[in-house]
Amino acid sequence: MLTLKYYPYDLKFSEVFAVSSNARTSTEVIYVELGYEGKIGYGEASFPPYMKERRDDNLVYLSQLNLSGFTSPFQMDEIYAYMDSLSSENTPAKASVDMALYDLMGKVSGLPVNKLLGLESKKTIYTSFTIGIGEDDFILRQLNKAKQFKTIKVKLAGDILYNKHAIEFIQNNSAQAIGVDFNGGLPNKEIALNMIQWLAAKNILYIEQPLPVSLEKDYIFLKAESPLDIFGDESMQNVKDMIYKHELFDGVNIKLMKCGGISKAYQMASIAPSLGLKTMLGCMAEGSCAVTAAANLASMFDKVDLDGHLMMANDKFEGVEIVNGELKLCQLKLTGIEKQ
Amino acid sequence: MLTLKYYPYDLKFSEVFAVSSNARTSTEVIYVELGYEGKIGYGEASFPPYMKERRDDNLVYLSQLNLSGFTSPFQMDEIYAYMDSLSSENTPAKASVDMALYDLMGKVSGLPVNKLLGLESKKTIYTSFTIGIGEDDFILRQLNKAKQFKTIKVKLAGDILYNKHAIEFIQNNSAQAIGVDFNGGLPNKEIALNMIQWLAAKNILYIEQPLPVSLEKDYIFLKAESPLDIFGDESMQNVKDMIYKHELFDGVNIKLMKCGGISKAYQMASIAPSLGLKTMLGCMAEGSCAVTAAANLASMFDKVDLDGHLMMANDKFEGVEIVNGELKLCQLKLTGIEKQ
Repeated sequence: MLTLKYYPYDLKFSEVFAVSSNARTSTEVIYVELGYEGKIGYGEASFPPYMKERRDDNLVYLSQLNLSGFTSPFQMDEIYAYMDSLSSENTPAKASVDMALYDLMGKVSGLPVNKLLGLESKKTIYTSFTIGIGEDDFILRQLNKAKQFKTIKVKLAGDILYNKHAIEFIQNNSAQAIGVDFNGGLPNKEIALNMIQWLAAKNILYIEQPLPVSLEKDYIFLKAESPLDIFGDESMQNVKDMIYKHELFDGVNIKLMKCGGISKAYQMASIAPSLGLKTMLGCMAEGSCAVTAAANLASMFDKVDLDGHLMMANDKFEGVEIVNGELKLCQLKLTGIEKQ
Repeated sequence: MLTLKYYPYDLKFSEVFAVSSNARTSTEVIYVELGYEGKIGYGEASFPPYMKERRDDNLVYLSQLNLSGFTSPFQMDEIYAYMDSLSSENTPAKASVDMALYDLMGKVSGLPVNKLLGLESKKTIYTSFTIGIGEDDFILRQLNKAKQFKTIKVKLAGDILYNKHAIEFIQNNSAQAIGVDFNGGLPNKEIALNMIQWLAAKNILYIEQPLPVSLEKDYIFLKAESPLDIFGDESMQNVKDMIYKHELFDGVNIKLMKCGGISKAYQMASIAPSLGLKTMLGCMAEGSCAVTAAANLASMFDKVDLDGHLMMANDKFEGVEIVNGELKLCQLKLTGIEKQ
């Protein structure tokens, strides 16, 4: 028998987090607890502003889930098909149940989730650290937090002067490698190409989603002309996007919350190379629960950007650890303590 | 430590097996044994004439595999990447190692392979039974063997008179539902459409690969005009074929030996619905070892056609059982006995 509980929770950022479209002091999540044979599997749904999903709708969706027809978490595939049969949306809620099922499968079998997936690895995996948009003193504080990381992902926007200043300011204060994420903030393909060429001259590693989803057709031009690899994020939410839009990008940023969980992210990462796409494993602004779930897949990816939990002031879970920028897989634990 | 052994074996058919391109009395396979912590995982590579893979080349490839850098079968993903790095071909050999790794992961964890994959299912799964090309008395003997099966897959070819006779003869002697597999045997799209229309009037369920790979572009016409679903087989060997040719077919026949094993077939079956493709799980003429490996995935598929092992006179393994046409997953066992 599988039992499902869930509750909303507000994760607070240690500092205001700003990207091209918005600035926030907290982010809404839902925590899911799946019970089976005295064990509990945990999952988390997060709701970044750029996805259309709303927490209230996902809570309603979870209230409609009736898992009493299933007898074990190992019925993952059929449970997912049941979830899809109720709604084609509510992807974060589905992702949270998927995570909780994998957490349970791991606990029941005694296998860490990465082993369960055939992803045991001795590789050293580094994650990047994200720096949001802000004033110089904010960036300096972030760079201080970022010291242990080999790569920084810098959020930029439509303000070209800000962008150039931020990159030069960071490079004057740090020798770390830099990737850039525009979250669709640039206004058109000509400005985007100019900006990318400027960034290439600054030895930036890669570019993420420079143009908004509404200008997707212009990625053909941009990909052909850009000296840097362009990863799709907002444009590449799930396996369908990846298949039908793979010619627009050099790489895909895969996130559990967009695609629907561990099972779907595994599928996307498995087939991306066949589509000629490089892969980045990303996360939303979310807690250790969701980030730890994603970390199980890290060895499959070309780049890993799993730092969402590091921004949180009141994370209720402990899981993946980051030591000298290196991702260390650990068993997920609910501490219940709102860490400051 | 993983240790790899392998040896060639010739599986003998109980009766001559004929399809549109050839007739055979035996089929070549390789058996693989992967040792780890005192347990052995088994795998099988088979070599149907329509694939370009040859057993000798695959034996050479296996002789080049050095798994000493890997410490556990749960490093599946990295072991597969290593196999791909040595050769882009030798798919049956890779499939056999993939199967053996899953068999080992199952034995080490105590989880049946379908559970390990989140595919535990209470569904009743029926497999079809294949009848090759032959004279009336051959067909009658095959129909006798096919009594317990709900669906028969009938092999047809370019000889329209034979095709019509075979279907009418079978329908006069059986009330079972029928699918038809041409193995690319029809000469052009007009003849194919006529044949399919005739078959539709006979209430045939589906059509498999009516035109050869060399006439692939004509599947656009055929799919648009055909009253029956058309599954690709020879044209749809792996995930790349499936992605780039999905508009040519209504469905895809996925076989471990074509795509490279359980992991790859799982990936293909996972994404096929996103491409608008129905799914069939098929097999080659091969033994219980390979068929049992495939059977772990059966619950993911719309149709299941796992009967290759039923044709064999000297199968050395026991595994999946078929009871009243229903597929029963069982632990794979090497009996060593050449069953008659």
